[in-house]
Amino acid sequence: MSTTAPDPREERFERIPFTVTDRCGEARCGRMKLAHGEVETPIFMPVGTAGTVKGLTPEALKDADVEIILGNTYHLFLRPGLDVLEMHGGLHEMMHWDRPILTDSGGYQVFSLKELRTIREEGVEFRNHIDGRKHLFTPESVIATQEVIGSDIMMAFDECPPLGEEAVDRRYLERSMARTTRWAKRCLSARTRPDCALFAITQGGTELDLRQRHLEELLPLPFDGYAIGGLSVGEAKPRMYETVEAIAPQLPEDRPRYLMGVGTPEDLVECVARGVDMFDCVLPTRNGRNGQLFTSRGRMIIKHARYRTDMGPVDPECDCPTCTHYTRAYLRHLFISREMLAGHLVTLHNIHYYLNLIGGLRAAIRAGTLDAFIARCKEGWSHSERGA
Amino acid sequence: MSTTAPDPREERFERIPFTVTDRCGEARCGRMKLAHGEVETPIFMPVGTAGTVKGLTPEALKDADVEIILGNTYHLFLRPGLDVLEMHGGLHEMMHWDRPILTDSGGYQVFSLKELRTIREEGVEFRNHIDGRKHLFTPESVIATQEVIGSDIMMAFDECPPLGEEAVDRRYLERSMARTTRWAKRCLSARTRPDCALFAITQGGTELDLRQRHLEELLPLPFDGYAIGGLSVGEAKPRMYETVEAIAPQLPEDRPRYLMGVGTPEDLVECVARGVDMFDCVLPTRNGRNGQLFTSRGRMIIKHARYRTDMGPVDPECDCPTCTHYTRAYLRHLFISREMLAGHLVTLHNIHYYLNLIGGLRAAIRAGTLDAFIARCKEGWSHSERGA
Repeated sequence: MSTTAPDPREERFERIPFTVTDRCGEARCGRMKLAHGEVETPIFMPVGTAGTVKGLTPEALKDADVEIILGNTYHLFLRPGLDVLEMHGGLHEMMHWDRPILTDSGGYQVFSLKELRTIREEGVEFRNHIDGRKHLFTPESVIATQEVIGSDIMMAFDECPPLGEEAVDRRYLERSMARTTRWAKRCLSARTRPDCALFAITQGGTELDLRQRHLEELLPLPFDGYAIGGLSVGEAKPRMYETVEAIAPQLPEDRPRYLMGVGTPEDLVECVARGVDMFDCVLPTRNGRNGQLFTSRGRMIIKHARYRTDMGPVDPECDCPTCTHYTRAYLRHLFISREMLAGHLVTLHNIHYYLNLIGGLRAAIRAGTLDAFIARCKEGWSHSERGA
Repeated sequence: MSTTAPDPREERFERIPFTVTDRCGEARCGRMKLAHGEVETPIFMPVGTAGTVKGLTPEALKDADVEIILGNTYHLFLRPGLDVLEMHGGLHEMMHWDRPILTDSGGYQVFSLKELRTIREEGVEFRNHIDGRKHLFTPESVIATQEVIGSDIMMAFDECPPLGEEAVDRRYLERSMARTTRWAKRCLSARTRPDCALFAITQGGTELDLRQRHLEELLPLPFDGYAIGGLSVGEAKPRMYETVEAIAPQLPEDRPRYLMGVGTPEDLVECVARGVDMFDCVLPTRNGRNGQLFTSRGRMIIKHARYRTDMGPVDPECDCPTCTHYTRAYLRHLFISREMLAGHLVTLHNIHYYLNLIGGLRAAIRAGTLDAFIARCKEGWSHSERGA
């Protein structure tokens, strides 16, 4: 680390404009101005790991009113590689997407490599999962990478310790949080682009006192927004909701709050009600490719024999192109026949469903009818088919 | 066969309107009126085997100016099955495609099953390739199936004998042609829908005298159009062109001429010049999914390392969405990363390329500049990369 790095506490860049426009209990609606456009919150960000949201064109995403997508720094760093991203002038230009992009820091992926990585104060050394070559990710390098990507929102480099089955002890959690704080400061010092916002990631597992302590370390620093990291990694759902309920209201009122890697439709409504503004998750895309549809009546496994002659739309309450133009019977046929169109049409519906749900939550917050909206959602989901 | 079947020579249905509008040597432009719309010829029909052109939505097909697609009776009969097609009111409604569809008769697929089929005068008994169940295809049943599908153009049930390596002897060819003629008559007698046109398939391999004899048997019958079957099945290219050159001009001037299962861009220009009006082939879709692009400069294998940092479009002369919005480097990245978008974008370009090529042929015929157009095409293709 250079000794001439800027003081991380210094406000060198204007923070992104974010205004809370409406409130309903802890839930809020807001508007966030990013380099590539305005985003209304609460918002769901489809995951576009390697420079494409699997199965959808940018045009299809726009038709579904997707306002912002997520890219994965680790994957983009490996493929197509920074030189290729740089030649294109960034990820937006390369993938023909002119709306905002948020990128993670790569931390989550690198720590998941387990046997293949070594954590040092400087950063994480790892062998990649493709050809085993060795790399070093540091707070400085991941900021530089995200600036090459040209992310509207960059995430600080953090350590995300496993919870649940592989639970780590408090002492490990404490050491890891302290390192994450030091790395967060180095990320701030490493920033050079005023048009790439930077969010911090708060950790602490489901230990509320540790979470509290981490907030106290990170909140004084000039981040554009704050993420709740380290959840939805194996812990029980009620524990996750409790943690969000305790932490979200303590995040700055005037900064966006992002719950990373979450979640199911149920998670979205529960956590919006607890004050979260931003979500990302692979469920609508990954499960879509496996033939699982999210609907107002719960989940649907389209390959089931019961849909062979089902002439209804996937979701009678949905106005997406899949539900407007195609029957369940045809979708099942495409899925059974392993046709590419199946993955496209199912993913298209799922993304529409998530975006409609989050849009419904925004409308309900504005109308002050959030509880009724959530009760209606849950009543519908209770009809989910068994096994889905 | 019922003894009350209508006389196959009887003109029970009005033949589809087809007008030749322009000529240039043996090549011709025409207009064909089908139940789902008008089609300009020469035309290329993308293959939509199982009720979807692999990798493309109906909207993407329309954006590429696709006027007619091909469906495979054998595959649709097995999956989704006739009951499901019937419940939808036909293939158009099921797959959300309101332009014309031509279906083959299933003969080609059934005869390809080799060990799994028995040919009888009545029809062909076979075990399907999916679960091995036994079925019988007869001329009557394949017409009934195509009428359930609701094809704008149905094909008669024929036997397509193998050529090339597995060449069959003349005696086999003669017997097979005679049977194809008897079956063609039974197909005519089996028709019930005036809105589903019926084309005959002329056989005879590359033996010109046998071809001649088959034409004499089939031309007096009231078919809406005539296909040249049994080519592009293993014979050498010059033999194929010779056969087309000899046969096409002998087909009725006032009926569309369809060369089945052909072919490469080279085949299209060579055979349009010899008087063919209609083509279908899996090359642009199948090769597209394998990363092979057809361009004005020949074929391109997008996975090659040389494209890793290539910032150019696939084909500078192409105005398709793939060439307009994406670089070769990005397409290569998608292909190497096995992203679904790769198959979509490459197929999209290939279909645009084929449709632009056939549209260019039409324009050149009208302008009387076909030779110059073809020479320009060939000059471009001569730059094809090695190995492509």
